[in-house]
Amino acid sequence: MGPGPINADPRVLRAMSAQLLGQYDPAMTSYMTETMGFYRDVFKTSNEQTLLIDGTSRAGIEAALVSMIEPGDRVLVPIFGRFGHLLREIAERCGAEVHVIEREWGTVFTPEEIERAIRTTRPKILAVVHGDTSTTMAQPLDELGAICNEYDVIFYTDVTASLAGNTFEADAWGLDAVTAGLQKCLAGPSGSAPATFSPRAVDLINSRKSIEAGIRSADDEVTSSPIRSNYFDLAMIFDYWGPKRLNHHTEATTMLYGARECARLLVDEGIDSAVERHRMHGGAMHEGLRGLGLSVFGDESHRMNNVTAVYIPETVSGDAVRAELLDDFGIEIGTSFGPLHGKVWRIGTMGYNARKDTVLTTLSALEQVLRRAGAAPTAGGGVGAAYDFYADEARDAAAADAEAEADLDAAGAALAAGVPA
Amino acid sequence: MGPGPINADPRVLRAMSAQLLGQYDPAMTSYMTETMGFYRDVFKTSNEQTLLIDGTSRAGIEAALVSMIEPGDRVLVPIFGRFGHLLREIAERCGAEVHVIEREWGTVFTPEEIERAIRTTRPKILAVVHGDTSTTMAQPLDELGAICNEYDVIFYTDVTASLAGNTFEADAWGLDAVTAGLQKCLAGPSGSAPATFSPRAVDLINSRKSIEAGIRSADDEVTSSPIRSNYFDLAMIFDYWGPKRLNHHTEATTMLYGARECARLLVDEGIDSAVERHRMHGGAMHEGLRGLGLSVFGDESHRMNNVTAVYIPETVSGDAVRAELLDDFGIEIGTSFGPLHGKVWRIGTMGYNARKDTVLTTLSALEQVLRRAGAAPTAGGGVGAAYDFYADEARDAAAADAEAEADLDAAGAALAAGVPA
Repeated sequence: MGPGPINADPRVLRAMSAQLLGQYDPAMTSYMTETMGFYRDVFKTSNEQTLLIDGTSRAGIEAALVSMIEPGDRVLVPIFGRFGHLLREIAERCGAEVHVIEREWGTVFTPEEIERAIRTTRPKILAVVHGDTSTTMAQPLDELGAICNEYDVIFYTDVTASLAGNTFEADAWGLDAVTAGLQKCLAGPSGSAPATFSPRAVDLINSRKSIEAGIRSADDEVTSSPIRSNYFDLAMIFDYWGPKRLNHHTEATTMLYGARECARLLVDEGIDSAVERHRMHGGAMHEGLRGLGLSVFGDESHRMNNVTAVYIPETVSGDAVRAELLDDFGIEIGTSFGPLHGKVWRIGTMGYNARKDTVLTTLSALEQVLRRAGAAPTAGGGVGAAYDFYADEARDAAAADAEAEADLDAAGAALAAGVPA
Repeated sequence: MGPGPINADPRVLRAMSAQLLGQYDPAMTSYMTETMGFYRDVFKTSNEQTLLIDGTSRAGIEAALVSMIEPGDRVLVPIFGRFGHLLREIAERCGAEVHVIEREWGTVFTPEEIERAIRTTRPKILAVVHGDTSTTMAQPLDELGAICNEYDVIFYTDVTASLAGNTFEADAWGLDAVTAGLQKCLAGPSGSAPATFSPRAVDLINSRKSIEAGIRSADDEVTSSPIRSNYFDLAMIFDYWGPKRLNHHTEATTMLYGARECARLLVDEGIDSAVERHRMHGGAMHEGLRGLGLSVFGDESHRMNNVTAVYIPETVSGDAVRAELLDDFGIEIGTSFGPLHGKVWRIGTMGYNARKDTVLTTLSALEQVLRRAGAAPTAGGGVGAAYDFYADEARDAAAADAEAEADLDAAGAALAAGVPA
């Protein structure tokens, strides 16, 4: 129940135990093509170039940035937590001239703040984290696409921590490049990074295309601005996933099976339903933690659905409580990084662990461990508050259902009476 | 039965279906530490820094090269197949001044040729492929360590295609950096790259260490020559796998389980026994292919144990034969790249597929398909030659056993008689 990686969905693990296929076996290439389709649904995009980077989520970030950044390019990184620092650092290593704006951990930027920085720095790329687990904040992105469009800025975000647990719409929000990972709300293991690229990003990347000497033919052009990495050269990776099937790496077959199953399960559930499930169980955890008497960290109006940070009570050792939860109850929760290290615990409700039983078990165990550590949690306060939250949710859902049914009845009656509804 | 990826050992797949662990769960970190130990045995090294790169085998290559190469460094790459071109290309992208020597595909270099090139170019790094599946040749490396030592050159090799199927000794041969993959003789899926680094390589890499701003403390030094990649920054990866456990990427848990099991099975079998198994079944395949009347490609004295290339008979379509083998017999074989594309088939006997039944089934099916395609394979010639080879092997083994037993008896008799043996 930490900030991820979390337990994988057993169906994902089962998919990953299937025997391997050769890399150009039609069954294998059709799995690759299917996987592209599933992730278009997950990202809410129609981008042709929607595929997997073979590595952990940070491999996806580096692939996107190194393929788009030419040395000397200006990149703007708004930083509101650890992973903003990571974007800055990766962009710097790609040779970018990086400009940052920073906000206190636990807060997010307004669109105006970001627009002002764009006006000042005139970057080629805006690179911003969507949900930063280090602070549990989700940066609103829905208004940034229009701003980037106005200033002709490539808009990149990393949604590793947020995708499928929080509303996200790649196309509607005007994203050019998006990267993710499996180990949070997608309920899979770390090691594969789903990513999607708009036609504009694809044009930029393909303008830097290299073809390996070992497989190059005489009429292939040679770029003057090759991407600095071979492994992360998206132009080559596009040609490997596309109809050319030009050999690049050997696709990580087992991770492909896993990534495909993660997306297939989400598409089956419905992305909006998955987000709603995260909202509900994340909400119950949040209320439960408050019910135990703990204080929630950060700007509540921009909290991610799938992870909550609470201040560690001053009288207890944060690490001792975490160790006892893990050793005696088999429940893992996290601390955080940098300014928050040792100050907060981070408790996730994501992916396969976004369930009622995991929420109630965690709150129940935490109460016991806190009490034994000398704190004074409200007896039954955590589980009680979560139960209350679930009851409210059920009532709201029933009311909404009844209203929808009444509307339907009214429409039916109107239809029967020949009256336009 | 292609040049890899091949079928995974079912025990590896089973290990990969285990539930995930948190990245700092003591059970997880102890798996990481165990895995380091297993790979020391597989590589035959005592290098502390023996670990996994989270990506396919080419990720391992790039991690080694980008962490060791500073822009402007001279790198010598002897090229005898496609993967030599890959080393050149990756080194170039790292900013190296790359010097190459080339040999015709199907041949390898003498140590003298490589020494001559070292004397001329004075490189910082010699980067050479061990077994290049594109040509099925294995470059002898055993004399190169001493040469590199004499000229103070860092000695790097990629053993993705050769490890565990051909004799390899990282320490005895004087290697500084070695990278591999799971999808060949290790009998696992692509997606994790085991690697090992000598103390000299580690010193070089650590001299370029960066620490991310998000987790840096005030007294950490800042390098003047940072590694160009964050994801492949081995100095950071060493600190993640080492006792500091400094957060870098989130280790790809399922791939770790797989990589660990691949190595555990090899250690259990004995590395030398695994190489011997590949020699035996590769030899049977080689004899069988000749027995069918096919001509083997390349310098036979430097053939890898685990893959054989044969010329495609001029009267048949290489792709049609491969398709029929796959579609009707469920057996995949490969073609090759560049100058060999469409000229040879490559047939592997590696990892879980280095077995008698797979050799005989493949030869048997190939005979049928060749005949239907209008070629005139010797009836029963492939399977017959393989059977003969196995019989010779069994006779040799029995003779060796008898000799060893006789030696033991003689020693025992001498001991009983009080005579020094």
